[in-house]
Parts: sequence; C-alpha cells; structure tokens
Amino acid sequence: MSKVFVDLGVSVDGFVAGPNARPGNPLGDGGPLIHRWMYQTAGFVRNLGLKGKGRTGPDNDIVEAVTARCGSFVMGRRMFDEGEVGWPENAPFHGPVYVLTNDAREPWVRPGGTTFYFVTDGLASTLSQAREAAGEKDVRIAGGADVVRQCLAAGVVDELHLHIAPLLLGKGVKLFDGPLPERSELEVAQVVDSPGVTHVSYRIVK
Amino acid sequence: MSKVFVDLGVSVDGFVAGPNARPGNPLGDGGPLIHRWMYQTAGFVRNLGLKGKGRTGPDNDIVEAVTARCGSFVMGRRMFDEGEVGWPENAPFHGPVYVLTNDAREPWVRPGGTTFYFVTDGLASTLSQAREAAGEKDVRIAGGADVVRQCLAAGVVDELHLHIAPLLLGKGVKLFDGPLPERSELEVAQVVDSPGVTHVSYRIVK
Repeated sequence: MSKVFVDLGVSVDGFVAGPNARPGNPLGDGGPLIHRWMYQTAGFVRNLGLKGKGRTGPDNDIVEAVTARCGSFVMGRRMFDEGEVGWPENAPFHGPVYVLTNDAREPWVRPGGTTFYFVTDGLASTLSQAREAAGEKDVRIAGGADVVRQCLAAGVVDELHLHIAPLLLGKGVKLFDGPLPERSELEVAQVVDSPGVTHVSYRIVK
Repeated sequence: MSKVFVDLGVSVDGFVAGPNARPGNPLGDGGPLIHRWMYQTAGFVRNLGLKGKGRTGPDNDIVEAVTARCGSFVMGRRMFDEGEVGWPENAPFHGPVYVLTNDAREPWVRPGGTTFYFVTDGLASTLSQAREAAGEKDVRIAGGADVVRQCLAAGVVDELHLHIAPLLLGKGVKLFDGPLPERSELEVAQVVDSPGVTHVSYRIVK
C-alpha cells in the first residue's frame, strides 16, 4: 500500500523558510540557505530542467530516491501561490499535484507532466484524490508548514524526512509552530551524515 | 583555550521540556521521554549516584565525553529552582555551577563536588566566572532554553550539541522560541546515529 510522507528541509532552529516569503521570494530572506545542499545535486538539476548534470553522491541518492517514489503531491495554497510565479514552465513535480484551497479553478496542465488540481472540499478529499492518483507509488506532502501540521494532526503521515541544514536562521516560517499535533512516537529509519546537511528519516508509530 | 558549549536533548519538534514544568515536575509532562536514551547509560547512572552500572556503548560514550570535558556550568534561575528540589543531595554536576539570577545568595556547597554560585551582575560576569573556574576544561551552558538563547545571541557559544529524540512532543518548552539570535552558520562536527536518539554536534562559525 502506498505511503504518505513529508520530506522537508529545515534549519537547526526549525525554519522551513526565511522571513518575507511571498510570490517572487518564495523561500523568504535567507531561505535558500536551508536548501543549499540540494541545489547542486543531479536530481535537482534534472527536475528543474537546469543546465549541466549536477553532482552524484549520497545527497543526490536521497533526492533521486524521493523523486522515484512520488506518485502524487499534496500542497497548500500559499506554497502554490509562491511557486506559481517561481517554478519554471516545466514545473518540477512531473506528476499530479493536489492543491488544498478555498478557490475553485480548472486543473492547470504544465509541460513535463505536472498537473495542478485545485481541491476545495478539505484535506481528507485532497488526500483521497492524491492516494488514488499515486497508485502503487507514494504521496508526498510537499508543504508548506501549515499543510504538514494538518496532515500530522490528522494522523495520515507514515514517514517524516527532515534534511537539517547547519544553520540558525533566526527568523521566518517554522515547521513546528502554533498548535501542534498530539504527542507521537517516531522511529529513526535512516540517518545520513553529509558535510552540508544531516538527513534524518522517521517512521511515525501509529 | 577552553570552549563554551551547549548540550541539550530535544524532541523532533524542538521541545526541551514538556508542559507544566515546575519544581517537582522539572522536565514537564512527557519531558522525560526526551531523555530516555540517556537514563540507562553508565555515565548518567554514575553521575546521579543511582544503583547499578548502566549501559556502555555509543550513547554512553557521548555522555562520558561531555562529563569529562566540563570544568564548570552556567545555569538559568528557573532550571536551578526546578533542580534544587529534584536533584539528589549529591548533585549531578560535580563541579562549580554558576546560576544567573536576580537574587543574591551564599554559595551552596553540595556533597560530591557540586557548588552552586549565584551571580547577580549579568551574563557576561557569569560566563567570566565560569571560564575562570573551568581552567583548561570547558564551560557547559546547562540550560534552560532562555539562557541558551541568551548565550547564542551574545555570540559566546563555540559548539551546539543536540540529542534529537524520535518524538513529537506537541507542547512544552521550546529551545528556539520567541526572538532568536541573528542568522549563524554552523558546521556539522559529528553525527552519531543510535536507535533511540540522533546525536548531532555543530561548531558555530564566528
């Protein structure tokens, strides 16, 4: 059965984006520092359609493994709004993306296999559609932080993967902020120690 | 030259204690879950004067290395108040502890080598006294979270060691809360992957 997983970059102090995040500045001030480890990987370069080949190695292996397992994506409205003006035309998902929103809109088909579907009847419906679209593959909760917290609170997340960047950002958007889900036990599934990032994957005990 | 370091257990969602922390419940509700990995280690058992020998292995190696390097400690008033009624008479520091407080008090000498000194003229003075007492050894900022943040903001911390427990606590006292220090770059110094905890040590780039 397919899994639902969260895969996010965070700073040591828990930020997923810097301050002043908005369309045109999607990761906020300093936010790209959280994802530095990823920008040179071959998988990222290919997903974004950038020039060059990028680097292979343990960081890239992680990017490739995540890319390979994604059958569909769930995304919050704010992340979509920021990405809509920032992603290349050939958007980096290359699969169906279900955007949780209050505003109905026709599906938006992009070159390269990404289609955004706008779901207005809540998280359960969004997840249900994403699961069906994923088939044997997995559903990635792409973000932002609000949607991740909603999914954790709803108990639908099977795995939480954090890429912890060696950085105190000080200001911005926190992953774990405001009212949080109830206490949950996790199991450490994998730790990969790179010079520029610490990858830690957890299984959520249900 | 001696180093100033922070060494703290945190949950994945960034808590160093659960809710309702107070004297008599020093780690708050659920807070001991953050430190489960440590309670069975030989170093912890010895430092607390508990019965039995405890376990050796990678987790204990980390406890022993921290114990061996501590020449003195800096502590916030709240942590002291909570610990005063909770620590055994033979307090677990076995060295000089400088408590940052507004209330003058005579030094409090405990059996086993721990003496608490109460410093009322600010953080810089507290650190200066702790550094002098440490000699060739290092100064550990013992906590709580407020004092750690003050020390990070003052730029006096050389190393940050986090022991990340596989747990979402949901409520309690966060390490990185409220106004945080300015952006800082870190370097990953060491990652130790245990089943019950992920130990990540950073050097703070100055």
